[in-house]
Amino acid sequence: MSDLREDGFLGGRLRITQPAGGYRAGADAVMMAAACPARAGQSLLELGCGAGVAMLCVAIRVPGIMLSGLELQPEYAALARRNADANGIAAQIFQGDLARMPATLRDTVFDHVMANPPYFTAGTAAPDAGRSTARHENTPLAVWIDAALRRLRPGGHLTLIQRTERLGMLMSALEGRAGAITILPVAPREGREAGRVIIVARKGARAPLRLLAPFIMHEKPSHSGDGEDLTPAAQAVLRDAAALSRGGADFR
Amino acid sequence: MSDLREDGFLGGRLRITQPAGGYRAGADAVMMAAACPARAGQSLLELGCGAGVAMLCVAIRVPGIMLSGLELQPEYAALARRNADANGIAAQIFQGDLARMPATLRDTVFDHVMANPPYFTAGTAAPDAGRSTARHENTPLAVWIDAALRRLRPGGHLTLIQRTERLGMLMSALEGRAGAITILPVAPREGREAGRVIIVARKGARAPLRLLAPFIMHEKPSHSGDGEDLTPAAQAVLRDAAALSRGGADFR
Repeated sequence: MSDLREDGFLGGRLRITQPAGGYRAGADAVMMAAACPARAGQSLLELGCGAGVAMLCVAIRVPGIMLSGLELQPEYAALARRNADANGIAAQIFQGDLARMPATLRDTVFDHVMANPPYFTAGTAAPDAGRSTARHENTPLAVWIDAALRRLRPGGHLTLIQRTERLGMLMSALEGRAGAITILPVAPREGREAGRVIIVARKGARAPLRLLAPFIMHEKPSHSGDGEDLTPAAQAVLRDAAALSRGGADFR
Repeated sequence: MSDLREDGFLGGRLRITQPAGGYRAGADAVMMAAACPARAGQSLLELGCGAGVAMLCVAIRVPGIMLSGLELQPEYAALARRNADANGIAAQIFQGDLARMPATLRDTVFDHVMANPPYFTAGTAAPDAGRSTARHENTPLAVWIDAALRRLRPGGHLTLIQRTERLGMLMSALEGRAGAITILPVAPREGREAGRVIIVARKGARAPLRLLAPFIMHEKPSHSGDGEDLTPAAQAVLRDAAALSRGGADFR
């Protein structure tokens, strides 16, 4: 693992140590956390939690949430523990493979499961091995979905973020096993196609699928430099730890 | 079948006779036709063509297209023939069941297949039997997709419109058999969820799925009466026979 460095998230409410040159969590993790409809007193498992950014973002917004994380790579699992401690957040971090679920987790079901699975299929080499494991799938997406659904109580919520081009695969994996599927397209700017989709679904539910109006990240059409032109809704999520539902996205 | 009446489509360019009280084609058929990326000299099959509105809309925009339609209900197949004739458009209309494809069609492949399958599952009674058959599925959606893909040449385009809540089922049916899937959400107004999705996909293609910015039908937020507040893009499609690609939707 390369050198570590500390980054601020949620307007500095969360301080995260992560590799300077390896896989680094960013806006996608924060957006997924903002979509998770967790309430105080509920339990949440994050599969592939990395250095813990997404699950810790949920805890900042929802004090009293009971956090568990599962991470394949020991160095990232250790970072997740360190980041939870450093931010004063209680969290159980398990090191292990979601395809061979650790026994303690196998005996537990959760109110919420959250995952930001790798965006790229295996095969493309990356200079940093830890980054490569986090970005390239060795475990097929369908196995992630299966593992997530098994760890949910009936009616529990699954929250995912993924590249839009894998929407078909996600839909196939959810078909018949989860309902009340809500798709939130995330587009860089008004009128542009969505590069990411956030999906919230309920295990065993039968309510119909909904496709929400896109969430727009940046304000001005083709402004030079994406730095400080976040939309008010994106600022609320990324800087003020707002729930996506407060930005108009209506998850159930 | 109830009394017939004549309706104008595409700003009066197309005159359509359809049942006054039965299943009546409307904006969805015109929108699907506008999404079909057909060019002059190509062949198009519409499955479940009803009175022929969608396929005839394509012919108005693309003179020289070779049209075939398949319709289960003899009365609607007869109307499709009558409407093609009355508008001076050449079209072969077959009466039959797409689940038991007529022999002539079974031996043919097309550049384009288009379908607007029934929006509701079987079981709900409707007062008009013809309307009920057109609106409620007796043939599962997956069978429609399968029949459509079988009638396409490799690389040929499938164009569909459907209620958004059935997107999961559509994605599952297309998974692994079609690629270059482009989803165009159709929303009643800016910021509202999409009630319809238009899907264009290519048989056997491998290009990634895309989720376009929504197509917005009506201009003002919650205007009283939906009558004459169409967006310029919706007017161009519904009144001026424009292709959806001219309204910014980028199908390939």
